[in-house]
Amino acid sequence: MVDVQSQPDDRRIPLQKVGVRNVSHPITVLDRDHRTQQTVGELDLYANLPHSYKGTHMSRFIAVFQQHAGDIRMPHFLDMLDDVRTHLDAERAFGVLRFPYFMEKHAPVSGQASYLNYHCSFSGISSEVQREFFVSVSVPVTTLCPCSKEISDRGAHNQRSTCTVTVEVEQFFWMEDLIELVESRASSGLYTLLKRVDEKHVTEHAYDHPVFVEDLVRGVTTAIEDRFRFPWFSVEATNQESIHTHDAYAYVERGRPPMEKPCNLTV
Amino acid sequence: MVDVQSQPDDRRIPLQKVGVRNVSHPITVLDRDHRTQQTVGELDLYANLPHSYKGTHMSRFIAVFQQHAGDIRMPHFLDMLDDVRTHLDAERAFGVLRFPYFMEKHAPVSGQASYLNYHCSFSGISSEVQREFFVSVSVPVTTLCPCSKEISDRGAHNQRSTCTVTVEVEQFFWMEDLIELVESRASSGLYTLLKRVDEKHVTEHAYDHPVFVEDLVRGVTTAIEDRFRFPWFSVEATNQESIHTHDAYAYVERGRPPMEKPCNLTV
Amino acid sequence: MVDVQSQPDDRRIPLQKVGVRNVSHPITVLDRDHRTQQTVGELDLYANLPHSYKGTHMSRFIAVFQQHAGDIRMPHFLDMLDDVRTHLDAERAFGVLRFPYFMEKHAPVSGQASYLNYHCSFSGISSEVQREFFVSVSVPVTTLCPCSKEISDRGAHNQRSTCTVTVEVEQFFWMEDLIELVESRASSGLYTLLKRVDEKHVTEHAYDHPVFVEDLVRGVTTAIEDRFRFPWFSVEATNQESIHTHDAYAYVERGRPPMEKPCNLTV
Amino acid sequence: MVDVQSQPDDRRIPLQKVGVRNVSHPITVLDRDHRTQQTVGELDLYANLPHSYKGTHMSRFIAVFQQHAGDIRMPHFLDMLDDVRTHLDAERAFGVLRFPYFMEKHAPVSGQASYLNYHCSFSGISSEVQREFFVSVSVPVTTLCPCSKEISDRGAHNQRSTCTVTVEVEQFFWMEDLIELVESRASSGLYTLLKRVDEKHVTEHAYDHPVFVEDLVRGVTTAIEDRFRFPWFSVEATNQESIHTHDAYAYVERGRPPMEKPCNLTV
Repeated sequence: MVDVQSQPDDRRIPLQKVGVRNVSHPITVLDRDHRTQQTVGELDLYANLPHSYKGTHMSRFIAVFQQHAGDIRMPHFLDMLDDVRTHLDAERAFGVLRFPYFMEKHAPVSGQASYLNYHCSFSGISSEVQREFFVSVSVPVTTLCPCSKEISDRGAHNQRSTCTVTVEVEQFFWMEDLIELVESRASSGLYTLLKRVDEKHVTEHAYDHPVFVEDLVRGVTTAIEDRFRFPWFSVEATNQESIHTHDAYAYVERGRPPMEKPCNLTV
Repeated sequence: MVDVQSQPDDRRIPLQKVGVRNVSHPITVLDRDHRTQQTVGELDLYANLPHSYKGTHMSRFIAVFQQHAGDIRMPHFLDMLDDVRTHLDAERAFGVLRFPYFMEKHAPVSGQASYLNYHCSFSGISSEVQREFFVSVSVPVTTLCPCSKEISDRGAHNQRSTCTVTVEVEQFFWMEDLIELVESRASSGLYTLLKRVDEKHVTEHAYDHPVFVEDLVRGVTTAIEDRFRFPWFSVEATNQESIHTHDAYAYVERGRPPMEKPCNLTV
Repeated sequence: MVDVQSQPDDRRIPLQKVGVRNVSHPITVLDRDHRTQQTVGELDLYANLPHSYKGTHMSRFIAVFQQHAGDIRMPHFLDMLDDVRTHLDAERAFGVLRFPYFMEKHAPVSGQASYLNYHCSFSGISSEVQREFFVSVSVPVTTLCPCSKEISDRGAHNQRSTCTVTVEVEQFFWMEDLIELVESRASSGLYTLLKRVDEKHVTEHAYDHPVFVEDLVRGVTTAIEDRFRFPWFSVEATNQESIHTHDAYAYVERGRPPMEKPCNLTV
Repeated sequence: MVDVQSQPDDRRIPLQKVGVRNVSHPITVLDRDHRTQQTVGELDLYANLPHSYKGTHMSRFIAVFQQHAGDIRMPHFLDMLDDVRTHLDAERAFGVLRFPYFMEKHAPVSGQASYLNYHCSFSGISSEVQREFFVSVSVPVTTLCPCSKEISDRGAHNQRSTCTVTVEVEQFFWMEDLIELVESRASSGLYTLLKRVDEKHVTEHAYDHPVFVEDLVRGVTTAIEDRFRFPWFSVEATNQESIHTHDAYAYVERGRPPMEKPCNLTV
């Protein structure tokens, strides 16, 4: 049977990125409190394509990924990319794996337990000269506006906000530790189950800890630099402003920039 | 050229609904303050299909709609459905047209003008025995929690909320009047542009007018019954709770139920 | 601490539906081939609210659901709704739980295994006089256009299509059996991993089994009536037409209509 | 009234990006065939924030944009960013404006007219040393698989695909010309209204012009280099594979890289 993809191409146009997107697959990741967690991954996986080949063999991306899906822990993600390079005969392989990750949380006063869902991702790139790996966690929080509090005789507008931290990883860390760090710098963390005593607590705690979207990313930045040693990281936050239909946003990045920023891998 | 769709079908299974979905098209609608407004419509349009026909002629839905898109005002929507019935040789035609609709608003103290986008829709059904037409407006507002205010020594959690009103229409009304009615029953309306004096005002106004999601739909219901005479309507509200990642929701409907509720037309 | 929600309300407006939406939670469901499957559920859960109460206690929905999330099998869903009625002191409880569900499939010629993700849901309603439970499966397939094949000298346009079947359930059945039934009536089923021999097979099989979106829902209807005994069911299909940017759609329902159709529970 | 945002911040953390997201607004853009087109824009607008300021004045982004929304033509986008810099007292301003854009198209045989919606965007950055402006057009097309055609005795799988071209602009051009160029390199362009004679034509034309996702981006690249003189551009394509639930993807960029790639402005 003819291998059309392997036929030569004479247009002399190398492609930076060829691959598969939105592959849905059950995956298993590490869990600080329960050893492992089974969840649902969504994968984008790419390689470069030299100018002399007409097409890539898309099914090989799937075949390689399937062999790794049962144990996608941080140290293994780049190993999977190495396998992609080998099986696709490519110079560079890269990709991103998005997944919901659940943590059990305890309400601040009653101690009631419930699960909260954090959108996380692993991404990375592998080549002869480059091995970069990133972890991203999106943490939903409350932010209460310092300006609204200051200028108003009573109350202050507040809202759901999402703070996303993306870190370049050189040694293993627990995503849970990063998530708790973000929650500690917001006006309040969120919970799926709150009793009235808890609702009073989070309301007053938020009122006592107002943060602009700018304050949130700066506070998280300072806390990360105090506690972790990532070669590079970014912090962004989006406030779903309760007084507008548009959002407020802030972004900061710190450290030595990687050869490829995650946005180049994942967009 | 063979007309495959018109061939007979012997499975004896009539279809309740056959048609096109997500047709994007420029449309013109009426505007209370500027006579007309050009916007972008997204259309679902259907007819029934008797058991004896193999298929419908999908292109005819498009052809009929195109003739009406330049003047989609309320009184004309059912006329378009009548044309669908005729051209498709169907007993029943129905559909929904969703569109963003902009109103110019003035900040409550400074008077600064800005536009706010409301998601609206027209839907309806036409048959020999049935002509029903519905208008839906989704109004983003602020809601501030009465429980949080009552039990807390300071502050109160509040959030962006969306209140959607769907009304059966027998005589023309302005969507703008319905939108303003909803905003008047929330803790506060929203604005795209607020100065500091306005932010102080909306913060304090929201604190002084706390509403549960249940209060919001009841308040809007009462106001609609005071002001309008719709044969049937529903009010629903979704709070993007600032202390949770899930939403709080309430729904009420009033009046003589139509033969088809809008959910049967639009899902 | 004051219980604001339990305060009386004098507006005399009962609410048909009050509750929580988009609650994300890990769940365990039954699996025909592997006994159980851990996945990620998204829940909407409601009760009615009599006119005399100001508000509902939203946290109780979460508390009840948490006790059942570890074993959400079909026979238990209505039990959970019964618990909601009891804990909320409501006449009616209802809701929907959406979740991705994976099946391992084997490529038609090479036999290569891979996972495919099906969007499924459970929904239901419980009251003194009513216990109705529904299961819905969305099956992605290929459809190839009979008209395009008939009138063209070569080729035929085809596309990704989604066929969603919703059934009222009185006795247990395997979702996998329903999924396989749908795939057998499309131009072709889909696979995550196909080798070239498989690609040849699915291409030719699709060309040899053209179906309009109308044919697909009729074929599935006939097959369901041959094999199952559901008191009521609906079949809908959406073609992501490869020659248009809009979709083609067909819907059919059969049997004795339930007191509440699923669209009234889930919208 | 206190200006909280202008208070000093001593954490010494400058922010690369602060601003507003998802601002919805009516806009007017140029139209090759009808002079101007009114449509609906969605805006993200940012500036940098020096370390010494606590917060930015979010309302100023809106105020500046409002003055320009009535005439957002290509040459004016950077002028708007200049105004943002001035009003926010910032070194750098940047942003992206997304909008649906409609073109009237004529079916290939019958000549029937209909509208097709293209997702477009303007983005750019302005600073003392940098003025870069980008236009992006997303063009839905049909792609038919060369491998499937070659190895199968009859038929070939094909699907809806989206090809997005992003160009750095130094002199005015018509988006319509770029859109038509992309459509000419796909297996077929798409149409909202096709008669049977047209459906035969597009089916056979697609069968006679098979392209991998890799071929599509290379073909568009070659055509752009033949016809335009953009200092930099990228071409990406996503096939909604009709035989899979995941997508196939290819990306290429050409020319002298700008100081900021659009992904850094728009993510």
